[in-house]
Amino acid sequence: RGKKGHLSARECYGSVVEGLKHLYRTKVRPVEEMYKFAEFCSQPLQDGDFDAKPTVLLLGQYSVGKSTFIQHLLGRQYPGCHIGPEPTTDRFFAVYDGPEERTTPGNTLCVQTSKPFTGLTAFGTNFMSRLEGSELPAELLKSITIIDTPGVLSGEKQRVDRGYDFVRVCQWFASRADLILLLFDPHKLDISDEFKRVIISLKGNDDKVRVVLNKADQVGEQQLMRVYGALMWSLGKCLGTPEVARVYIGSFSADGSMRENGNEHLFKMEQQDLLNDLKDIPRRSIDRKVNEFVKRVRSAKIHAHIVAHLRSRMPSMFGKDKKQQKMLDNLHEEFNAVHKATHLPVGDFPNLDRFRETLSTYDCSKFKKLDPKLMSKIDEVLEKDIPALLEEFRNPYQ
Amino acid sequence: RGKKGHLSARECYGSVVEGLKHLYRTKVRPVEEMYKFAEFCSQPLQDGDFDAKPTVLLLGQYSVGKSTFIQHLLGRQYPGCHIGPEPTTDRFFAVYDGPEERTTPGNTLCVQTSKPFTGLTAFGTNFMSRLEGSELPAELLKSITIIDTPGVLSGEKQRVDRGYDFVRVCQWFASRADLILLLFDPHKLDISDEFKRVIISLKGNDDKVRVVLNKADQVGEQQLMRVYGALMWSLGKCLGTPEVARVYIGSFSADGSMRENGNEHLFKMEQQDLLNDLKDIPRRSIDRKVNEFVKRVRSAKIHAHIVAHLRSRMPSMFGKDKKQQKMLDNLHEEFNAVHKATHLPVGDFPNLDRFRETLSTYDCSKFKKLDPKLMSKIDEVLEKDIPALLEEFRNPYQ
Ligand SMILES: Nc1ncnc2c1ncn2[C@@H]1O[C@H](COP(=O)(O)OP(=O)(O)OP(=O)(O)O)[C@@H](O)[C@H]1O
Ligand SMILES: Nc1ncnc2c1ncn2[C@@H]1O[C@H](COP(=O)(O)OP(=O)(O)OP(=O)(O)O)[C@@H](O)[C@H]1O
Ligand SMILES: [Mg+2]
Ligand SMILES: [Mg+2]
Repeated sequence: RGKKGHLSARECYGSVVEGLKHLYRTKVRPVEEMYKFAEFCSQPLQDGDFDAKPTVLLLGQYSVGKSTFIQHLLGRQYPGCHIGPEPTTDRFFAVYDGPEERTTPGNTLCVQTSKPFTGLTAFGTNFMSRLEGSELPAELLKSITIIDTPGVLSGEKQRVDRGYDFVRVCQWFASRADLILLLFDPHKLDISDEFKRVIISLKGNDDKVRVVLNKADQVGEQQLMRVYGALMWSLGKCLGTPEVARVYIGSFSADGSMRENGNEHLFKMEQQDLLNDLKDIPRRSIDRKVNEFVKRVRSAKIHAHIVAHLRSRMPSMFGKDKKQQKMLDNLHEEFNAVHKATHLPVGDFPNLDRFRETLSTYDCSKFKKLDPKLMSKIDEVLEKDIPALLEEFRNPYQ
Repeated sequence: RGKKGHLSARECYGSVVEGLKHLYRTKVRPVEEMYKFAEFCSQPLQDGDFDAKPTVLLLGQYSVGKSTFIQHLLGRQYPGCHIGPEPTTDRFFAVYDGPEERTTPGNTLCVQTSKPFTGLTAFGTNFMSRLEGSELPAELLKSITIIDTPGVLSGEKQRVDRGYDFVRVCQWFASRADLILLLFDPHKLDISDEFKRVIISLKGNDDKVRVVLNKADQVGEQQLMRVYGALMWSLGKCLGTPEVARVYIGSFSADGSMRENGNEHLFKMEQQDLLNDLKDIPRRSIDRKVNEFVKRVRSAKIHAHIVAHLRSRMPSMFGKDKKQQKMLDNLHEEFNAVHKATHLPVGDFPNLDRFRETLSTYDCSKFKKLDPKLMSKIDEVLEKDIPALLEEFRNPYQ
């Protein structure tokens, strides 16, 4: 096969994803399974984890216009959508492409391995009853999936218990999203405690964060400046990064209309910039997916070496328990031995304490020995297959 | 005398100042002198300290338009003023009212007790050669004095040693100013290390700080938003207060002209707001002066009680050295005793360690005993004279 310079961005995205999926199934998962990677580190990847479209996550206090923003983008409301001045969206909505309009309850959504939400099961049934899938045919959804969230409440309202860990759920979505939009409106600038915790939990994902100052047409020129300044003042402190987050100032109303207050020109330009930012997501998403895949393959490789090493140190007849305990106590030295033998980077080794905790429930003598053939496949993935995949599909994006 | 409702703001300012000066000379300074307040705490106040007009301090990186801003306000350049694209103002200028145009060198300025700059002597001759008085007749200067400063340098330029402690000099002016204007321009947003230290040193005076985003007409609408947002982002972190500093966005050019870029209307409103803020200074300045005077009188009173107490505990004949040493070692207990006897608030007591250090060079038996007549005068000032002064001159400002 030659370079596929004629593929559209979306087709290419699909091709890279298919390539990764194939590599995982044929060369990586066998190693993960043989050395119990799932038990020690991370569940096996499902097709849904690969197929997941690039995702945009919307966050913000209630009534700042998150659901309306989606209507603005899609040109229509998504099934199940509620829009209104009081807190309206009472659950997380995953809005994705499909041939017909319909909603899917959270419990169902979380068991579909073709969808990337199986990991959400961990947040319990209380949460799953606050999750819904919303499917509709729309051009934009062919390239991205949008997550609408319940508005963050402030002050008194905040004290109502949600019945699940809102901050950690937001974090789950944030770490898997390709773009995180924080929406504000000029009348809801106060960053409540809960929202502050959400923003702080975005650390590590701050390169994905964009801020939208919505409904900017509702205040006068001078007041807009005050509001915008106050927003940056407090966001700078919450996010803590020296790099200033990009803020889009505009009014993303349901029908695209805007109050005339002398700033329409600015708002139009800002909105165009944001749309371009959204269109750029698939390109950045591939880079991210490949990147995360490579990280996982590296972990699986190190994990295999460690487990096989522990197995190789076990006596064949007597004193197994004693030896195992000794290795548990001096796990650091065993890691060191693996590092010396393989020269794999220290920074990629798993967390010592967590590894020890899991290890204590296993019998090392039951572990598998190192399988050179399987291991050479893993090296092939890292050294040959992924570079080739990128080479083949690089062109459309550059 | 009845209420002076017919006095102008400026006349009233003068009257309150004269009143404070009189109270200080007749009732407060005698106590300060008797109990060595100057040696332990603070130099006696000079007429110049009272007469000092409300002061506006300008700070900012070089070339952001500080000197031009003054020209904008006065309608002309002050004597000695230099304006240009490279670092131009090479010294601190005190710009004040006077019948004729002339400049006064720093050394001369610092010995004039009629001026409020005697305290600057402490920064040494290197600094005083970088200080100049500039006198001219101008309406605005009848109510305020303006301090122009050398631009803060960034990066490489910053490394040139100034020969005096720039940050501490700025702090000296800041604590005596009534308004502190931090100027920025869209092309000089980076807050250099030196400037950052200046800004951080403003803590405690942050209620006086206003920010000016000058030359705002030099960039387009969208870029202005970026620039302004970035400014607030980093200022919020430097100043650290939850209250957002007021920012004035405009272009304070020498002749008041402005490039047309669609924001003129906003800039005009902002500039008007800033002028109103400047006009409001005399009112706030009186409050501040009275406030600081009261604080000083309270300190002098507590100081007198402490010193007289130490004196009263000294033996009349033998064992003076031993007793003095014991009191030095347990100074905390002596302070406690004074607090118990007088019920003066603990928070108003002087710093223990600094007091001990000074005390160690004195002989407590040489201190004066408590003089009830002098002390009752001090109480009179706090309980009767100041409230009466305020009552008499309150009306014009409300
Ligand atoms: N750009 C806009 N201009 C004017 N009004 C708007 C705009 N966007 C939304 N609104 C109005 O604001 C209200 C709240 O909108 P919406 O329900 O979309 O907010 P939300 O952030 O999704 O709130 P929640 O968190 O409660 O779900 C609605 O009445 C909507 O019509
Ligand atoms: N509002 C304005 N619009 C356009 N140009 C301006 C404006 N204000 C000042 N300038 C120009 O910027 C340059 C620097 O001005 P100025 O000397 O007043 O700055 P400064 O802050 O006093 O600098 P320094 O710290 O070096 O004394 C000058 O060339 C001046 O003409
Ligand atoms: Mg909503
Ligand atoms: Mg200057």
